Amino acid sequence: MFFHQRFVPGLAIYSYMIGDPKSKEAVVIDPTRDVEDFLRLARSEGYRITHIMETHVHADFVSGSAELKARTGATVHVSGLGGPEWTPPYADRVLRDRDDLLLGNLRLEAIHTPGHTLEHLTWAVYDQPRSREVPALLLTGDFLFVGDVGRPDLLGAEMQKILAHQLYKSVFSVLPAFPDFTEVYPGHGAGSLCGKALGARPSTTLGYERRFSPALRQKPEAEWIADLLAGMPIAPAYFSRMKQVNARGPRIIGPELPGQRPLSASDLYHRRCENCLILDVRPKEAFAAAAIPGSINIPLGANLPTWAGWVLPYDRPIILVINQPADLPEVVTHLLRVGLDDIQGYLDGGIDAWETAGYPLERVQTLSVHELDQQLQRGSPPFVLDVRTEAEWQAGHIPGAIHIHGGLLQQRLQQVPKDRPVAVVCGSGYRASIATSYLKSVGYSSVSNVLGGMAAWKAAGLPLATD
Amino acid sequence: MFFHQRFVPGLAIYSYMIGDPKSKEAVVIDPTRDVEDFLRLARSEGYRITHIMETHVHADFVSGSAELKARTGATVHVSGLGGPEWTPPYADRVLRDRDDLLLGNLRLEAIHTPGHTLEHLTWAVYDQPRSREVPALLLTGDFLFVGDVGRPDLLGAEMQKILAHQLYKSVFSVLPAFPDFTEVYPGHGAGSLCGKALGARPSTTLGYERRFSPALRQKPEAEWIADLLAGMPIAPAYFSRMKQVNARGPRIIGPELPGQRPLSASDLYHRRCENCLILDVRPKEAFAAAAIPGSINIPLGANLPTWAGWVLPYDRPIILVINQPADLPEVVTHLLRVGLDDIQGYLDGGIDAWETAGYPLERVQTLSVHELDQQLQRGSPPFVLDVRTEAEWQAGHIPGAIHIHGGLLQQRLQQVPKDRPVAVVCGSGYRASIATSYLKSVGYSSVSNVLGGMAAWKAAGLPLATD
Amino acid sequence: MFFHQRFVPGLAIYSYMIGDPKSKEAVVIDPTRDVEDFLRLARSEGYRITHIMETHVHADFVSGSAELKARTGATVHVSGLGGPEWTPPYADRVLRDRDDLLLGNLRLEAIHTPGHTLEHLTWAVYDQPRSREVPALLLTGDFLFVGDVGRPDLLGAEMQKILAHQLYKSVFSVLPAFPDFTEVYPGHGAGSLCGKALGARPSTTLGYERRFSPALRQKPEAEWIADLLAGMPIAPAYFSRMKQVNARGPRIIGPELPGQRPLSASDLYHRRCENCLILDVRPKEAFAAAAIPGSINIPLGANLPTWAGWVLPYDRPIILVINQPADLPEVVTHLLRVGLDDIQGYLDGGIDAWETAGYPLERVQTLSVHELDQQLQRGSPPFVLDVRTEAEWQAGHIPGAIHIHGGLLQQRLQQVPKDRPVAVVCGSGYRASIATSYLKSVGYSSVSNVLGGMAAWKAAGLPLATD
Amino acid sequence: MFFHQRFVPGLAIYSYMIGDPKSKEAVVIDPTRDVEDFLRLARSEGYRITHIMETHVHADFVSGSAELKARTGATVHVSGLGGPEWTPPYADRVLRDRDDLLLGNLRLEAIHTPGHTLEHLTWAVYDQPRSREVPALLLTGDFLFVGDVGRPDLLGAEMQKILAHQLYKSVFSVLPAFPDFTEVYPGHGAGSLCGKALGARPSTTLGYERRFSPALRQKPEAEWIADLLAGMPIAPAYFSRMKQVNARGPRIIGPELPGQRPLSASDLYHRRCENCLILDVRPKEAFAAAAIPGSINIPLGANLPTWAGWVLPYDRPIILVINQPADLPEVVTHLLRVGLDDIQGYLDGGIDAWETAGYPLERVQTLSVHELDQQLQRGSPPFVLDVRTEAEWQAGHIPGAIHIHGGLLQQRLQQVPKDRPVAVVCGSGYRASIATSYLKSVGYSSVSNVLGGMAAWKAAGLPLATD
Repeated sequence: MFFHQRFVPGLAIYSYMIGDPKSKEAVVIDPTRDVEDFLRLARSEGYRITHIMETHVHADFVSGSAELKARTGATVHVSGLGGPEWTPPYADRVLRDRDDLLLGNLRLEAIHTPGHTLEHLTWAVYDQPRSREVPALLLTGDFLFVGDVGRPDLLGAEMQKILAHQLYKSVFSVLPAFPDFTEVYPGHGAGSLCGKALGARPSTTLGYERRFSPALRQKPEAEWIADLLAGMPIAPAYFSRMKQVNARGPRIIGPELPGQRPLSASDLYHRRCENCLILDVRPKEAFAAAAIPGSINIPLGANLPTWAGWVLPYDRPIILVINQPADLPEVVTHLLRVGLDDIQGYLDGGIDAWETAGYPLERVQTLSVHELDQQLQRGSPPFVLDVRTEAEWQAGHIPGAIHIHGGLLQQRLQQVPKDRPVAVVCGSGYRASIATSYLKSVGYSSVSNVLGGMAAWKAAGLPLATD
Repeated sequence: MFFHQRFVPGLAIYSYMIGDPKSKEAVVIDPTRDVEDFLRLARSEGYRITHIMETHVHADFVSGSAELKARTGATVHVSGLGGPEWTPPYADRVLRDRDDLLLGNLRLEAIHTPGHTLEHLTWAVYDQPRSREVPALLLTGDFLFVGDVGRPDLLGAEMQKILAHQLYKSVFSVLPAFPDFTEVYPGHGAGSLCGKALGARPSTTLGYERRFSPALRQKPEAEWIADLLAGMPIAPAYFSRMKQVNARGPRIIGPELPGQRPLSASDLYHRRCENCLILDVRPKEAFAAAAIPGSINIPLGANLPTWAGWVLPYDRPIILVINQPADLPEVVTHLLRVGLDDIQGYLDGGIDAWETAGYPLERVQTLSVHELDQQLQRGSPPFVLDVRTEAEWQAGHIPGAIHIHGGLLQQRLQQVPKDRPVAVVCGSGYRASIATSYLKSVGYSSVSNVLGGMAAWKAAGLPLATD
Repeated sequence: MFFHQRFVPGLAIYSYMIGDPKSKEAVVIDPTRDVEDFLRLARSEGYRITHIMETHVHADFVSGSAELKARTGATVHVSGLGGPEWTPPYADRVLRDRDDLLLGNLRLEAIHTPGHTLEHLTWAVYDQPRSREVPALLLTGDFLFVGDVGRPDLLGAEMQKILAHQLYKSVFSVLPAFPDFTEVYPGHGAGSLCGKALGARPSTTLGYERRFSPALRQKPEAEWIADLLAGMPIAPAYFSRMKQVNARGPRIIGPELPGQRPLSASDLYHRRCENCLILDVRPKEAFAAAAIPGSINIPLGANLPTWAGWVLPYDRPIILVINQPADLPEVVTHLLRVGLDDIQGYLDGGIDAWETAGYPLERVQTLSVHELDQQLQRGSPPFVLDVRTEAEWQAGHIPGAIHIHGGLLQQRLQQVPKDRPVAVVCGSGYRASIATSYLKSVGYSSVSNVLGGMAAWKAAGLPLATD
Repeated sequence: MFFHQRFVPGLAIYSYMIGDPKSKEAVVIDPTRDVEDFLRLARSEGYRITHIMETHVHADFVSGSAELKARTGATVHVSGLGGPEWTPPYADRVLRDRDDLLLGNLRLEAIHTPGHTLEHLTWAVYDQPRSREVPALLLTGDFLFVGDVGRPDLLGAEMQKILAHQLYKSVFSVLPAFPDFTEVYPGHGAGSLCGKALGARPSTTLGYERRFSPALRQKPEAEWIADLLAGMPIAPAYFSRMKQVNARGPRIIGPELPGQRPLSASDLYHRRCENCLILDVRPKEAFAAAAIPGSINIPLGANLPTWAGWVLPYDRPIILVINQPADLPEVVTHLLRVGLDDIQGYLDGGIDAWETAGYPLERVQTLSVHELDQQLQRGSPPFVLDVRTEAEWQAGHIPGAIHIHGGLLQQRLQQVPKDRPVAVVCGSGYRASIATSYLKSVGYSSVSNVLGGMAAWKAAGLPLATD
């Protein structure tokens, strides 16, 4: 059996391609929208992608199943156990518990494991020449992770009760049917917000998890649920939107990426695209020194899609400011993965073109931690805004700082004074750059980014407070 | 923990890179000589390769540890338990049972598991934040495979006794210390000749193997050994040579591949390189229709290195005939992996250059299975030579055929008559092409390749015999 | 001024991209249908393709102007001087003599130079900061080549009279307006059939051509025309078709190549695509040893499109047999360039899949020149068919051979006896392989390809005849 | 004849590969040190590089002839007419005037055309089947450019007299032997400092230049020389060094680039490489917002090598700060081209690693032109330093600014006050960033970069002065 695990950093998504060496047919499980990787892999390994399977309706990325179907003609197999509301229209086959799929010598069996979502399936893969009774591995999607289980709180408070109960049953009534030695391949790795504390290993076994995962330790249901929900990180605002997009079926992109149109500095200056949002993906330092007024900075990197989902509006077309045209495919792929499809183009000639046109520039002050420390010891210190997560904040912060999670800044803006300099700090300066650009765009005039963030603060031995 | 499994098809080698996300240090386990893959991976993932580990002295490929050390400065860690004879000179640290290595949060512990070789180590990898007592996974090298164990018979009959006994002990005394749920990552996959019947899945667990692997079923030692050795495929002649090369330390290649020199048809015709062997890697059909007299055909593909190891002499420089210069790096990499380093160059302009120079051509007759069937029903049928493995032969063959394993043809040549047409058959025509080219090169004048081989014979419903 | 000349080997097409460094606007002249090269170049050099220009309606390849327009939004500028019949519908601007186009500091002026076609334009490019009166260079399309002029005989005997007269006037009345030192960039290079004897240099000057090109030597019109037409090679049958396709406007391909569908050997054997033609692009030797009955062999290489235009029917869908899937894009691009758009897919698993299925095989005998020589000296020699051009034939051929240009074989088939072995010879064996495959496909049973062709025959010192 | 012109942007170097299609031998003319391009081209086109020719001892880049010889075994052909001092030791053949080289049908003849240097050769290329008397083209090196001639003033005032006289003779006594229609392929294009005003077209003809190039207009020698030298831009300091390197023969690099070693932030902070210079190639904005104290900024781009030659010392090892490891090969290639070979490595993790380690940061203030304008109208305006060329300065500058060519800043540092804020302006901000980083590194505390530079100043309609 051919087995390939593919990782998308940042969103920390695992997708899979499993093939039968005899028939040369392959199934792809939980693809993202940028399906070229799988098309290329199938070509190079000599497989035909004939089936596409989903474990559940994803909340953190747009499903690539419809896209891959359009490119290959493969059939899509999804759970029907969440009802019509959660059954994507592009499905060719709607499955119930224990339905299966044959691929040469392989059998893939759908096991209903609700909890993260109502319809969630775990796929048990049987390597039939070795055993027809015991699966070789489980594709557990967002039900069971390395070191964790999928969170049941993404569909709102009401659903949370139902889902948490289902999750408890899936963990303690469904999973026990499978032996300790079963391999487990999850839908996410470390960094994903679909769980609380995912481990970095790409796979695990049921026995290892039973022994070492707090989430699999048997307890009374109420206690287990309380422990699970304690300290759960907040979910990005875009998650509920993603679920809708996936349940309704996303737009097909096709082989050509959008956003390839170069737009002149003059076009941008005169806002030819009136309602457009300017997304600047240059490094935080470059943005700090010179930016187009009103633009939002999310530096290019694995975390771009998550933060784009947190802070960008879904109803405004996007224009990109990038370092070089070669960056375009990567940026656009990141945005498409979280459903930000309306990308109008990019600033031709980059920020240089804007600068040499003599248009106005915006700046964010940069501070080293030593400079911030000095400012804090002077008469009128800045307002220190810490935009990290709750857990990071609790592990230690700058004395006197105020904590607002970066993803909630738009909602809690009234807590940030406009008449004082604001120094934004995060772990390293990345999230702070997003926050400073946002504050600038809504009229804060004196905003600074503490470069190196709390990592630098700690490395420099500066004082920490814990609440 | 960063975990990457890399597969080399044909030789069916698994190598690994494991990294500690904090320190960004990585260890590479059992690399092949073409180390660019790991250099590129480390670069793209932001890791520094600081350590190289071996499980044992390999028999089927040249170790890339010395090469990788030369390119990275990493230290090499090998077993010293086979004595000085089996301790490569390029090692920086020579290990005993239970020695270990720390890489940030990871601990890698050397477990002595002799049997395939005297010095063989299994590496137990501890993901210490989750458990300091139980390893997350075992890198079992050629000790334990998916569905099989490593063969103890590669070092000759005398050593076989010792090794088989040790293997029994490793399986039934060492391995039981690890729980069922331990993940197992072996050194080879399906197709490798380092075991009898390796499975195609890239990993497994101890429990799955204990339950479904015949090799792990408890029996009295003598019986277990007899079962293990029964039906063991013969090992390629080059295996013993590889062991010597690895034990002594191979030559460093450096970043530039050898063999890049174009040689004219006239150079080849006049044998400017007197002792050179001409290796033609074009498809079997192309070779059959027109070849340089005396050349050996091993068509480019994953099995090229194994067959090169079987049939090519190690003391003659090689000149290549390839379809196009773009194939050169792949061919040369294949040869380097099995220690065929002395590659002089390639025929400039390909076979066209030879043809248009008006030099003599050699041909192998091609036969469809229908044509062979007709010939066999006529008065003077050809001598049908089946060059497959013993197991394939026993599963059914052409009535009246004679069986000589392709790798043993040079030794058993006297069994093949020179005064009759010889029709060579294998599984599909690949091995038959190697054999026909060899027969031609030693003076057999009427040789044919049965295209499609036994696959075609069976598909066409022609009669089968079993002994 | 940015200046890039792009060469397509085989069809020997020169296309151009010229850019204005200030405005970063670029014009592309005479693109082929595979426009990715220009899109990539524009991206990497920072230009926007804003204009597309044609010199004339091409006969030897499908114009890529419509394709490039669809991908860039650029405007297309063509000659209207051939009347509506020769004005492509995708044109945005239809030009008359001396119309021009401004691109920043550049001026491009359309000069009517009929002769190869009625509407033919030469583009004079003025580097205006240096001179507004004298062009820096001429883009002469198929009017003026290095060492030759474009042929006036492609539109039939009647038009030939008109065009030859116009060509004489273009050469001796229009061209003299430009000084000796004008650079000349033509639309084709050596190997193109749009002229008689094109030189291999990529550019020239008017003065060099006036001094050394036989076609520019002043003579009485009748004599000049007679000399020009003497020894003109025959034009491929597909030329007239291409003109129609270009004049009507070709289909838009888009970014994804057709023909990517793998088809099983069983699909082909059972002719699921009833009317399909199987095109085998493997090397001539591979085809000779084993082929699907009825398939046509045009080995992959620069000359594939020309020969595909010569010998393939335009009304049958095509299925490909290729060495490896990686060859697919190149093969498909070749076919698209000459308008063979209906490509259904390719044989999955290559010829191996056909062979191992046990399906019947077809073979072409291969002969070295020495073997042919021996056969000719025996009692019943084969019928030797020479498929080279008239000029090659006249320069020397095998005594007793019969000459039929490979492109005319279908028309003159009755000249080839069916009851004798036929040995086909060309320059090296390439064209002979096409011819042998054709003969096989129409029922000739004993056909052989003389490998190395006349090059080998001469190199071996075998006897030559001249008529 | 195969003809390929290769352009290196920034240094604006043209190198050439010319091949004979029959013998498949090729000559490369004036290669740079990064010879992979030519190796790849030769491979893909099926040529063997058998000869390497130089036009002269280059001043602006390190010759790649020795490197290419080491990789191919080709012979190197150089002029001996400058005497032993100017004859590189790696030459295989030392030529005199009218010596020639045969390459199949091509003849390449060395024409002594001194003036730019003593030994300078122009190579006349004869396409012998067309004409044995008149060359098809001239490779004019740094003797004759599009729109200009090579400068005679690079070897010091004394040599300038001799060279200027020789140049006059080469132009008016040697060149007239060749007809107007001769094509001219020069050694440099627009942007090179080896001439005064090179045109952007990649080639020209003698006639076009005779008619439109001021440098070819016949005048009395003294007047011609005076005009030629008037307004000559100053030559970079590194030119004289390059000449020495080339005359003595540069070090061979081999296929692996130096500088691949990642160095930790801690290594840099503790200056483990004591004498090292830190070269930061990030965009000017990124550098402005956060930099390692003492580092020099030359943003990655085509002009990096010229400015590296201007401002970097040749006796200090270099450590790089780059945006991403993928930039490394480009940066290193740029440095090698101008002989900066001692590259120790790069900052692992980029500037982020420095920032999160809590190390001190340096900043350059950025100003828009509007902000500078406001500052100039206030009480204590900054010292405005204009670092452009003389010609740019004279075409208009900011009233009250002081002009020091960026390449001369180190020598004229005493003209820049340390006790006032310094605002540096150039054309767009690129050169200003280099200058500000230098000023910072030598202790100027208040330095700002006027982003957009004079382009922005003019676009914004701000007042201009001319002296």
